[in-house]
Formats: sequence, C-alpha cells, structure tokens
Amino acid sequence: MTAYNAFYAQSGGVTPVINASAAGVIQAASQHPDKINKVYAGEDGILGALFEELIDTSMESEADIEALKMTPSGAFGSCRYKLKSIEEQRAEYERLIDVFKAHDIRYFFYNGGGDSQDTAHKVSQLSDSMGYPITCVGVPKTIDNDLPFTDCSPGFGSVAKYVAISILEASMDVASMSSTSTKVFVMEVMGRHAGWIAAAAGLAADERGLGPDIILFPEVPFDEAAFLAKVAETVKNKGQCSIVVSEGAAYPDGRFLADSGVRDAFGHAQLGGVAPVVTGLIKASLGFKCHWAVCDYLQRAARHIGSKTDVEHAYALGHEAVELAVSGHNAVMPTIVRTSDEPYEWKLGKAPLAEVANVEEKMPTDYISEDGFFITEACRRYLAPLIQGEDYPSYRNGLPEYVVLKKYKVAKKLPAFTLTE
Amino acid sequence: MTAYNAFYAQSGGVTPVINASAAGVIQAASQHPDKINKVYAGEDGILGALFEELIDTSMESEADIEALKMTPSGAFGSCRYKLKSIEEQRAEYERLIDVFKAHDIRYFFYNGGGDSQDTAHKVSQLSDSMGYPITCVGVPKTIDNDLPFTDCSPGFGSVAKYVAISILEASMDVASMSSTSTKVFVMEVMGRHAGWIAAAAGLAADERGLGPDIILFPEVPFDEAAFLAKVAETVKNKGQCSIVVSEGAAYPDGRFLADSGVRDAFGHAQLGGVAPVVTGLIKASLGFKCHWAVCDYLQRAARHIGSKTDVEHAYALGHEAVELAVSGHNAVMPTIVRTSDEPYEWKLGKAPLAEVANVEEKMPTDYISEDGFFITEACRRYLAPLIQGEDYPSYRNGLPEYVVLKKYKVAKKLPAFTLTE
Repeated sequence: MTAYNAFYAQSGGVTPVINASAAGVIQAASQHPDKINKVYAGEDGILGALFEELIDTSMESEADIEALKMTPSGAFGSCRYKLKSIEEQRAEYERLIDVFKAHDIRYFFYNGGGDSQDTAHKVSQLSDSMGYPITCVGVPKTIDNDLPFTDCSPGFGSVAKYVAISILEASMDVASMSSTSTKVFVMEVMGRHAGWIAAAAGLAADERGLGPDIILFPEVPFDEAAFLAKVAETVKNKGQCSIVVSEGAAYPDGRFLADSGVRDAFGHAQLGGVAPVVTGLIKASLGFKCHWAVCDYLQRAARHIGSKTDVEHAYALGHEAVELAVSGHNAVMPTIVRTSDEPYEWKLGKAPLAEVANVEEKMPTDYISEDGFFITEACRRYLAPLIQGEDYPSYRNGLPEYVVLKKYKVAKKLPAFTLTE
Repeated sequence: MTAYNAFYAQSGGVTPVINASAAGVIQAASQHPDKINKVYAGEDGILGALFEELIDTSMESEADIEALKMTPSGAFGSCRYKLKSIEEQRAEYERLIDVFKAHDIRYFFYNGGGDSQDTAHKVSQLSDSMGYPITCVGVPKTIDNDLPFTDCSPGFGSVAKYVAISILEASMDVASMSSTSTKVFVMEVMGRHAGWIAAAAGLAADERGLGPDIILFPEVPFDEAAFLAKVAETVKNKGQCSIVVSEGAAYPDGRFLADSGVRDAFGHAQLGGVAPVVTGLIKASLGFKCHWAVCDYLQRAARHIGSKTDVEHAYALGHEAVELAVSGHNAVMPTIVRTSDEPYEWKLGKAPLAEVANVEEKMPTDYISEDGFFITEACRRYLAPLIQGEDYPSYRNGLPEYVVLKKYKVAKKLPAFTLTE
C-alpha cells in the first residue's frame, strides 16, 4: 500500500487546547506509516493550502510536538476564511487539488468550529465532484461549545474552568470589602450567541454564597427592570452581587447591550465591552460602587489552568480523526459521547460533516433558571465534568514552557495564487 | 508571665496571599502560649476593633487556618478606613483602648499597605500618648509593591505572575491569527500610581517575540504620537502588537487616560477602563483590528496561579511579626531583604513604622527603558525571582478548595460606638 501525505490545519478562533488536537493528529499519523507519510500543516488554516504555505511537521522535534499538548493558541496559525460553494469558487477548489497533487496529499484534517466544518465538508466533496481522491475528517473545536452531535467541544472545558475559577476568586475579593467598598462586580465573558461560557461561571456558585449571583445569557432577552431589581435585592440580602455577562447579551429587539451608542471625545463609537455598559447602568440606577473586568482573549488562551478532561478530549479527537481516516471513513467528524454524568464517562463517536456544518447548538431551555438569571441543576450536571482535573503546563523561570514551533516550510512547487474576490 | 490576647486585622485592597500572612500570625502566636493567648481578628480591619466586632480565630479548625495559605481575598474582611491623628480623633483612640482593655488585648498586628501602616503607627503611639501598653507590629501587604524598606510587598509577586502569564498567553493567541485578524491586543492592569504591575508583564517578553511589545507606565507621561508610531512600527515589523497599560497611565498634564470624557447614551460619564480608551485611539488613528481585556479584581484574586516565592514571603512576614512582638519589638514592620538575585536569596529584616507610613516607593527610573515603553534588564533582574515557583491550591470538583472561615464572634462587652464624622 502506498502512503500519502496528510494536510492538517487550524481554523477559526483558537483555544487553550487546539494544539493538543494537533498533537493527537500528528502522533496518530506517525503510527500509520503504511498509510500516512508526512503531516503538512497549513499556515493560517485553509489559506496555507491555497497559498501553498505548508509546514513540514516531521521537522519538529518529538519533544516539541509533545509540548503542543500544553500550549495554548494555534501553533500553525489560524484563519476565518470560509470557502464558498464549488460553483462560486471553482478556482479555489481547483487550486486545492493542484496543491494536494503537487504535495501528494490525500488526507485532509480540519480543526475548527461550525464554519470550519463546513469548509471541511466542501473539501470532502472534491472527491465526488472533481474526481480527486481525498479523505476528509473534521476535528471539532470551539470555546463556544455550539457544535452539534458532540457532547461538548474541545476548548470549552478549559475556558469554562477559567471562567468559573475567575468569578469564584473575584467574588471572594468583593466579599472581603463589600461592607465598606465595592458592592457589585461584573465580569464579561465570550460565547457569541451561545451562553455556554457564561453558564459555566455558575459552577462556582456554592452553598457558601460564593461565585456569581446573576448570569446574563444571550439566550435571554435583557429585561433591564428585572435585572436591576435582582441586583438591588441581592445587595440588600447578602451585601454584594457578582454578575457574569455574556458578550452576546442583547435587548429584546436584538440589539447587543455592548452596542450602547457610546461615543468617545472624538465622536467615534466606543469599542465593545458589555461589562462597562452593565456597570454603568447599575451605577446610574442604584448608585452602588462597582468594578468590572473583561476577560477577552485571556479566557481562551488560559492554558495555565486547562481542564484535564478538556485536554484529554482534544487530544483524543485529533487522534481519532486519523484513526477514522486510515480506516476508510470520509466526510466525518469524531465526537465526544457521554455515557455517564457521575462518575463521568465518555467514549468517542462520529458524525457526518454534512450534518455538522453550520449548525449552531443552543443551550437547552431547561438549562436556564425560570427567572432567566442563573443555571439549573440539569445544566450544572452537564457542565461539572467538563472542568474536572488540572492539566498544568511545565514551568521555567516562573512562566509556562509553552512551545513555539520551528515551522519549516515545504518547498513550493506551484506558482503563486490569488484568492477570488 | 501573663499571656494577653492579640488583635490582627487586614486592611486596604486584598491580595492573593494576605491570608497566608494571617496564617503566619495565627500559627506563630500559637507557638507562644506564655505570651499570646488568643488571636482576635478584626472584622473589616480596624473597624472590627472600633465596633468591637472581634472574630475568635481559636474557634477555627487547624485545617481551615492552614487552608488560609492557599485562599485569596481577605478572610476576615478588610476596609480602607484611615485613622486621623489623636488630636483629631481622640474618641476613636479612646474607644480602641476601651476595646483592647475589655478583651485583654496587648498585641496589635495590622496587615496592609502604606496607609494601613500609618494606622498601625498611630495605634503604636497609644502606649506613649495615652498610657495603654500595646505592642504594635505591621505586616506588609500590597499588590502595588510601593512600600518602602521591604524589597517587595507580599501580594505583588502573585499578581506579577498572573499578569506575565496572561499577556504571554494572549500574545500567543494574537500571533495565531494576526495575519488575517486581530493585530493589536491591549491589557489593562492595576497598580495605581506605581508601574510595578505593568512592569511585571515585561517578564513574559522573550527572544521568540512573545509577551508585550509596549508597556504604558504611570511614571511616563503618555506621548500619544510616539505611542501610535511605536504601535504602527511594531505591527509593521512583526505583524502584531501586544500592549499592557497601567490603570494609572496619564497625560503630561496629569489627567488619567481612563478619564476620556466618554459619555454614555444617557449622558453619564463612562466608568473607568483605560484599555478601551487606548484601543479606541489605535483604531481611530491606525485602523487596526484590536481586542482588549481589563483584568481588574481577577488579577488580585488569582490565587490559582500564586507565586510560590510570594506565598512564602507572605507567610514568613506574618510569622515574623509575631516573633518581633513577643521578643519586645514595638512600632516596627518586618521586611524582605534580598541578599542575592540569582540564585534568589532573601532574609527577614525590619523597619520602623514611623518611617514606613505613607511613603510611596516609585519604580527606579533605570527600570524603564529610554523610550519609556518597556522595562530594562535591571528591572527584569529585580522582578524575575518574585514570580518563581507555583503554589497551587488543592482542588475539588474542578475548583480550588478555598476556605471560608466560620468567623465566630467574641461576645461584646461594651456599648455600641459611632465613628466621628
């Protein structure tokens, strides 16, 4: 049997554990020398294939590939480029075939979220529609946890852990001083249109009154009066109030809270940030002393407090993608299948890319409490296993020993390519 | 020899390790039963003494006191109340003597920064000025690292570690996507008028181009044109730019950058946040896609990534405060004395409270690079040891097992007290 090369790339927003999936792909591929020769990583996702910017992962040391398991960010670069249909972008698809042919690539592994799985799905169609034999397997990834079929998405568990720990710690800080100083703390988290990350903050709530008191979900239209009443009541009853707000929180008319109409001194629209908006509202209406934080990239890069469960998922899914490909599966994505909440048990499954692509998995409505401001016990049961275990990176001089790869490029064989506008 | 009770309280903004100092005080006191009977902790700092809200630490389990070493926030509550002079607030001083007498308190340990050491100093004068025999020892604490005499202040090392790791991780995230997406990342940190915390971010910079590219210090008047030129140059040369800005960064006329004149839709002044202001400036002038984060309380509560060196300092200083008191020292504060940078070695020293109080230790000018946008090698040499070692808390169900004390109150013996306005 002839061995062919594999293409692997990272797509969409990066996560604390997407590189663990990369390690899974590369290490699994090395176990099948009869089928897979080298793994070429695309620089900046699918663009690496289009521009023939291929990184030869076999030139990296085994130790560096191993270190990917504990390194956040996207080691090969990522992009948000989305392939259109073959009809609309025939030149791009032909170019992909040219590059794959030139470099003997017959395996395609694409590591990303919903949009990226759509790209993977389209590439998988090259086989049928354009006669190029390619085996295409998606590797799931997104901190937003909005992929269908899989019980959870790698990246989410670590962000969930970071967010839960951060609001736990901040709420304790506020508790220390609330009788004489700050009464309200607002923390903004990511998640786009899905409230999963905000929900994870709820894991920090315990019978001692720590953690968040109120969570603002994108799924629940913002009711200003009810919210302010809840804040006032919480401060009255426990002397303080910790709030987690999703960047996607919106008014009933769909307008984001972050789109506050704020203008700076030059008349420019003020950049995002829903936390200061919510804080301003509380301050103006209730007069409490407030503090706010915006986690932004810190949360999705916080590999220093990675969830062990999440890291294991990420690695296993990368590894399984290769196993699926070499055993003849095409146009699929490996998934996490939960078999037990407590003790937490899971196994690997798979889903067809055609059904994964572009589907956004929302939070079940029974995961949000009736008043819309917290998670339910069902939600907690779902989320709790995903933050279990600490997978610490190694340290040198007080800082994590994150790896930066050498990224040796494969010599180009084709003329330059320009994207269709 | 008769044993007397001790009063201990936490003052000012809390830190990831102030509770380690509390554990040091309480555990050291238990080793001197001939001199110290019980340690009564003030609820909310000195206010606990004035209002006779005393927590009997002997009622807490040994395990819970031990767990203070790994618990952020102020376990007994803190305050920013500052005692005026005896002439101005005689009633408060008389009340302190009443409470101390009623509860047999003859040791006073006050855990705080510059303002708090001023309070400790004033209490120490009770002995001379009002004839009440009290031994008064300060325990240093402040994330701002601006206390004089001591080589560093407990709390700073852990915040420094958090900030350095956070910007390291975020800069790697930006690197993954800068060729097609976000070019500039701005992270806001605390530190008031001192740039120590912002400087610590510089530890993340390495020969691989990770970490921050630009640091905006409170000590360097903001030069908008030079700053924007530096950002543009950095993006041009390396494709991205990571910026750390201190909350205290200010224009040459002293006005804070955070005071941007921004008004919300209701005409209210927008709450703080220098990161969005700096980001807005870059976006408006250079047009780069930017992201920003505001760490706020997350940084000063982040015990999950506490510096081992910092935790050791904090505990040792609490312990030493008691040793100083029982060996007859009064009106002093134990300090950290550095004896070697590399390998890092330190010992304990002491300084008179009279000289510590209200002195703000600024960054030496040779710690900031000539262009004003980075730290020097001398600064790095000073800072590096302070973030060494990881002192992880224990975890249960994926979250740190931080302790919340029972806080049993000592029965009151005096009538209620009202503060002088």
